[in-house]
Amino acid sequence: MPVNLLSPDPASLHAVAGVRLGVARAGIRKPNRDDLVVLALAQGSSVAGVFTTNRFCAAPVQVCREHLASGAGIRALVVNTGNANAGTGADGLLRARSTCATLATLMGLSPTQVMPFSTGVIMETLPIERIEAGLPAAIADLQSDRWLPAAQGIMTTDTLPKAASRQLQIGGRTVTVTGVSKGAGMIRPNMATMLGFMATDAVIAPSLLQGLLREAADASFNRITIDGDTSTNDSFVLIATHQAGHAVIESLASAEGLALREAVIAVAQQLAQAIVRDGEGATKFITVRVEGGASDEECSRVAYAIAHSPLVKTAFFASDPNLGRILCAVGYAGIADLDQNLIDLFLDDVHVARQGGRHPDYLEADGQRVMQQSEITVRVLLHRGHAVTTVWTCDLSHDYVSINADYRS
Amino acid sequence: MPVNLLSPDPASLHAVAGVRLGVARAGIRKPNRDDLVVLALAQGSSVAGVFTTNRFCAAPVQVCREHLASGAGIRALVVNTGNANAGTGADGLLRARSTCATLATLMGLSPTQVMPFSTGVIMETLPIERIEAGLPAAIADLQSDRWLPAAQGIMTTDTLPKAASRQLQIGGRTVTVTGVSKGAGMIRPNMATMLGFMATDAVIAPSLLQGLLREAADASFNRITIDGDTSTNDSFVLIATHQAGHAVIESLASAEGLALREAVIAVAQQLAQAIVRDGEGATKFITVRVEGGASDEECSRVAYAIAHSPLVKTAFFASDPNLGRILCAVGYAGIADLDQNLIDLFLDDVHVARQGGRHPDYLEADGQRVMQQSEITVRVLLHRGHAVTTVWTCDLSHDYVSINADYRS
Repeated sequence: MPVNLLSPDPASLHAVAGVRLGVARAGIRKPNRDDLVVLALAQGSSVAGVFTTNRFCAAPVQVCREHLASGAGIRALVVNTGNANAGTGADGLLRARSTCATLATLMGLSPTQVMPFSTGVIMETLPIERIEAGLPAAIADLQSDRWLPAAQGIMTTDTLPKAASRQLQIGGRTVTVTGVSKGAGMIRPNMATMLGFMATDAVIAPSLLQGLLREAADASFNRITIDGDTSTNDSFVLIATHQAGHAVIESLASAEGLALREAVIAVAQQLAQAIVRDGEGATKFITVRVEGGASDEECSRVAYAIAHSPLVKTAFFASDPNLGRILCAVGYAGIADLDQNLIDLFLDDVHVARQGGRHPDYLEADGQRVMQQSEITVRVLLHRGHAVTTVWTCDLSHDYVSINADYRS
Repeated sequence: MPVNLLSPDPASLHAVAGVRLGVARAGIRKPNRDDLVVLALAQGSSVAGVFTTNRFCAAPVQVCREHLASGAGIRALVVNTGNANAGTGADGLLRARSTCATLATLMGLSPTQVMPFSTGVIMETLPIERIEAGLPAAIADLQSDRWLPAAQGIMTTDTLPKAASRQLQIGGRTVTVTGVSKGAGMIRPNMATMLGFMATDAVIAPSLLQGLLREAADASFNRITIDGDTSTNDSFVLIATHQAGHAVIESLASAEGLALREAVIAVAQQLAQAIVRDGEGATKFITVRVEGGASDEECSRVAYAIAHSPLVKTAFFASDPNLGRILCAVGYAGIADLDQNLIDLFLDDVHVARQGGRHPDYLEADGQRVMQQSEITVRVLLHRGHAVTTVWTCDLSHDYVSINADYRS
């Protein structure tokens, strides 16, 4: 059961001028489900991407990086679910390139204008015959209002499609930011991949797009974790079609740039949090906020130590205020000169620990009350400096084990 | 169900001249179970200890370090289960010191000659009234043949007591090495603590003892992991009573030194592996061996990335040869210049991946056959150098979640 997450209302997902989406059933792993998605971008669109840090990155990730770097002008994205095309060596690269070439031929593009994405099981051969046979149907389906079917077509163990959209006014014109995501995590993801695709019709200097994407990723997908595994295929792409008709945004520090930045980050955070809310087996949505670190880096270490601890996560699942496990995780986060006698711990508004020990006024009943909520904020104060970091995670339940033990069956 | 682990045969646990053990029921957390253990050491014994790297280390760990450093000559160890006395601030330190003082008075020692150890729930007040009331019964119980009851008296979520013993001949004398352990892990432990206590009557220069202990820890408790959590209380102690009557061992590189070293490491490895075999919810015992690294450190990173991955561990639980998850873990282990095209992966004798992709001769049926075993070796070849590291771990099962969700109830 996802935590406070609903299937998006299709009417809330605004079309982005210059982006059309099509889906098809290629039978890649299972029959009778949408498993192939194509995004077609109008000429003149700009595209930025960030990808997994995993050294065993998948073949499609390698091809995406090449095609982005080629400067050919990306005009199409092709996404398959059911097979990650990772751990597949030189043959996997050939298959990713073949998919791009076939789509390029069908759409009158050059292969380097296509970016490929795959998600699913690792170390199995990508069935390109089926994918390539399915491409004409996906192309025939291309429409600007197909964001929700696209979100459905990229799902793996997701129980709900994930999509979000915002509109804002820039120079008297309506600008749209819409995106979809699947999986769980960017730097710390789940299963076989997190994918995120966002598009805006804002008119923005292409040189600003990669920086905007990276800032949005750092504020969203890079702050979530389900189980700490970093996938081979994680990819997050931001498309700008430049069709909204307002004056070009030349700086993200301008009023228009700040407004667009805020909308892009808001959509990215909604998409990223949706992944955690639908985390494998999740029953609780946990915000971990670490304050007073000497640097962002040490706040992140502490936040991830808490968010990754199986002991902390099972305690949340059980609604058991066994909160010493959180202090334990703070202690092994790797801050060599941490002084445990300075640490405060809050659970929502409840002051649990002070100066490294149980707060004299802390009552188990107060901890118990917060632990029973479906949304909980853990707040740790390090008292070492002024840095603050927030990450989002979920609990570890029986269903996590079931889902991942049975994934291929 | 522990994996290929039986309760030790009491007859196999040889007494160590100069060490007596006593147990008592103090009712620390639950009634009617042994939860208090005292070890009494003959005058002239030497003691070495290694402790958790967790910065939130428990009060007894802090007191152990102080008392070892004081040079007073350790004559007694006191161990309680049911409460970790961690995350308890200044009050916790007072309570650990009080336990030492009471035992010292009862045994005619000074408080700094006593080392305290606690394991159990974190951030709860240590009930010293009950502990101190139980000490006379533990002292009355002191005998040299009580190693198995001592192993039982330090258990928490352990399902079986853990003890091991070896004898060897040095200079015509029989030398004994005997130890007990509980919990799961030293640098990467489980629950609320790994504890290990080993003793030998070998006559060894006291200056050699700490080095021997550290070497044994690095070859045993520092190579195991259940869930990656590093406890606040982990402690491993090696006692030498010097009563075996042979000529003093002045060098670990001598024939006698090497023989003793081998026996100490063998007992430590058996105790450490017993912890993994009895890991919370474990159904499989997994050896992860990483070869061909440029350094031990990078081999360890890769080995622990595999051994900690919830996805890898659930695949072992399911006997599902979803082995791409292992390659994925290799990729995110943090070796910045790793070339995925060099990697080999073996599962026991089965060559699964070569040059970063599925081996052309690999058959799913072969992987499936090995995955169904209760003992499995994962072998990764990095082809970067000559370093080799082995770690031991277990799978991640439904029972792990159940045990840790319900731990305090």
